[in-house]
Parts: sequence; structure tokens; C-alpha cells
Amino acid sequence: MAATAPTAAVIIIGNEILSGRTRDTNLNYAALGLAEKGIRLKEARVVPDVLEAVVEAVNECRSRYDYVFTSGGIGPTHDDITSECIAAAFGCKVAMHDEAKKILEDFYKENITPARLRMAILPEKTEELITNPVSSAPGYRIGNVYVMAGVPKIFQAMFDWVKPKLISGAKIEARAVSAYMAESKLADALTELQNKYSSVDIGSYPQLDDGKVAVTIVARGTDVAVLEEVISAVEKSMRQHTQNIIAGELA
Amino acid sequence: MAATAPTAAVIIIGNEILSGRTRDTNLNYAALGLAEKGIRLKEARVVPDVLEAVVEAVNECRSRYDYVFTSGGIGPTHDDITSECIAAAFGCKVAMHDEAKKILEDFYKENITPARLRMAILPEKTEELITNPVSSAPGYRIGNVYVMAGVPKIFQAMFDWVKPKLISGAKIEARAVSAYMAESKLADALTELQNKYSSVDIGSYPQLDDGKVAVTIVARGTDVAVLEEVISAVEKSMRQHTQNIIAGELA
Repeated sequence: MAATAPTAAVIIIGNEILSGRTRDTNLNYAALGLAEKGIRLKEARVVPDVLEAVVEAVNECRSRYDYVFTSGGIGPTHDDITSECIAAAFGCKVAMHDEAKKILEDFYKENITPARLRMAILPEKTEELITNPVSSAPGYRIGNVYVMAGVPKIFQAMFDWVKPKLISGAKIEARAVSAYMAESKLADALTELQNKYSSVDIGSYPQLDDGKVAVTIVARGTDVAVLEEVISAVEKSMRQHTQNIIAGELA
Repeated sequence: MAATAPTAAVIIIGNEILSGRTRDTNLNYAALGLAEKGIRLKEARVVPDVLEAVVEAVNECRSRYDYVFTSGGIGPTHDDITSECIAAAFGCKVAMHDEAKKILEDFYKENITPARLRMAILPEKTEELITNPVSSAPGYRIGNVYVMAGVPKIFQAMFDWVKPKLISGAKIEARAVSAYMAESKLADALTELQNKYSSVDIGSYPQLDDGKVAVTIVARGTDVAVLEEVISAVEKSMRQHTQNIIAGELA
């Protein structure tokens, strides 16, 4: 894989994920979108609504990766502390952001309230707003940190808005083959293949398909011809054990 | 919340989550199980199959929290590097673990292979095996780190085996009320309630229910009577705006 591809981290902010109340879906959405852009998602963290925890995660990730995407905590209520945290991480204050204020006033009109305007109180170092086509209250970017909503529909809309602006890397393609067999039987062949094709990331994913042991081998990398070579070699190894082979991944 | 309740972190190890290929479900399973035990899940991380990344996450988390649970990377193939990583994190080597070896031999009988036996090569400091009723290859515990499989069915079985052995904290109970209204209208009341009831964690979760704006307020804490007091006060505030109120959470 190209060493120069942009890298990224996702930070999910929210007690509700850690309490088990909510299943996060934003990480997977971002992961797929970043893969499409050829951006390498290197890490994800789930942190509680606690200032120190958010600040530490944001500061560690923004220094390590080209892009950081946060999800959650930018609503109008007392438990929405992300903007305070981002400001603290960047060593600035929060203040009413005129453009964000105007967006909220235009959207809510006579129903604008101080609580709603709280969503326009952003870190002073905010460089760019992120459009929210669903409910108007914008996300924003400071440096390489993209601060977005937690509600999946809004997170997705914001991420889709941001995505075209991100710098692309060589896209990581994937080729796969599956078989009803134990992955251990492929272990030696896979080790050999991985050693031979160091530019390819070969993953072996066992699964229980209705109680039947199965495995999917995925080859990931930027050169499709090489991936197909690897997968064809894997398939050949599989045929020594079973004829029950499926191109691609098992559903 | 009791300051003395045990704390925990979950570390999901796997390129397949970061590439978007797989949606993780193990975090939510662990989160719910830990909540049931009154153990506070403080953080979760998703890290790639890269030694340095796993070692750093494990060492940071094991020094901070009472329990660390890892998911993934303990199978028989070249990409299963978790045991090497855990050994490195604890500053020891890996070696064939006699008890684990016997478990695999008893399970696979004449089908035992060197690749399968690789699943018995564990960190030398392993203190205890974790039973795998699905496919035999055990997880294990070193210190406060519980190393478990990534395949959800196996992760769940291992977690269920471990759970009764964990030290319980005061259980966090939750009470909730929902309404078809904008959360911003409750913002002031919620801030007041949160200030008044500092032992309760009050969360406001907006959602779009078929395009209809709705909100669920969740009060979490150890004292049910107090939670019910909080939720009843929230409901009273809701009634000032709408009669469309639902006890508990929206589906």
C-alpha cells in the first residue's frame, strides 16, 4: 500500500455507546467512505462525555493522523459538551459563531431559542462549517478535525458533504474468495502468500454459517491484478480441501 | 455513581472493522454485559492488526482500568497476531501452553495440525484459560486483560463464561421517557435537573422517527427512586410542550 496515502481516525463521543444503550453505526459508515477515498482509517475510539477523555483522544489522534472525524455531542442540551472539549483541545474558547447563528435563525425562524442558539457556540478557532441538510445545526472543521453530529442520518449527511473535500489516496481494492472449510487448513499457504506479496494485506475471516464452518479470504491492496493473482492462488489451495468454493464473500 | 465501581475498556483488534468490511457487534455485547454487572465501560478502541498499535492500546488500557477485554486475532492464520502482541505488552514470550494444547487435541483428535496447534501458543504469563464452547480454542487471561475471539458467537460465549467471575459494582439502572418534540425545548429544564441530581447521568437523545422529530431522555444511576423522580420531572417538562409522550424509550 502506498505509504503516502492519507490516514484517519474516528472518535465516537457518547456515554450511550459505552452503556450499550445504542449500537454505533457511524464508524462503519465512515470506514466505508474513507476506504472509497483511499484514506486509511488507522484507529477508532469510543469515549464518554467527559472533557478530559475527549480532549486526550482528539489531541492524540490529530497529531498522529491526517484526518480526525468526531461523532456526537453537538446538540442543544447539557450533555452536548463536544464543542467545549474541542475548544479545550485546541486551546481556545467557544463563542457565538455568526455564520452558524444565521443558519439556525434562518432554519428555525420564530422558533429560535437560546437552547437552539447554543448549537452556534463553537470553538473560536473554527475554520469551516459543515453543512447539515437534515436539521441545519452545522458541524465544523478546525485544522484536521471534523466535528459532526451523532444522529446517524445527520452524521451520514455531514460525512457525505465532507467526503469530496478530502484528499484521496490510492484506492484500496479488495478481492475475496470463500469456502466451506476450516481456515487452519489454509494457514501455511496464506503465510507463504503473505510473505510473497508484502504489498497485499491478506485477511482470513472464519465464520459460522448456520453452524457450518466457513472461511473468507480477503486480499486488499491497490493493484487489482496482484490481488487477483493472490486470490487465484488461495482458491487453488482451497481446492485441495474442498470443491465447495464461493467467489467473493459469504453473505 | 459509586466511585468504587470497577472500570473497563474494550479493545477490538482487526483490520476488517477499520476497512468497513465488518460491522463490529462485540462492543455492544460487552457493553450490555458490563452494565449488567455494574462495571463501568470507560473506553473502547478499534486498532489494526499491527503489533505496536495493539501493544500501546493494551498497555494504556490495562494500567487505567480494572478490566480490559480484547476481541479478535487469536485464530490459526498469519493475520492472527494478538497473542504475540499481548506477550509483547506484558514483556514475555509466547510458548506452547500445555492445557490449551490438550484442549485442542481433544477437540480435533486425528485432525489436529500444526496450524491448529498455533492457537495453543500463548503468552508465557497466561494465568487462566477462557473456555470456548463453540470451537474449543481457548481465550485467556493475563493480569486484568481478557483475550477473546473476534467471531461474534465465540466472543459472546467467552464473555458469558468470564462474566460471572468479574467483580460487580453497584448496578447502573436506567429510566427513560420519550416525546415527539425537539430536545432543545427541554434544554433548560435538563440543565437544572442535572445540576440538582449530580449522582444521576441524564442523557438527551434526539432521533428522527420516520422523519418525525423525537427525543428520549435517559436517567442513569444506582438509585432507582431518584431516577424515577428525575424522569417524572422530565415528563412534567415535556407536558408543557406536547401530550405525545411515551414511557421508556422509542423503539
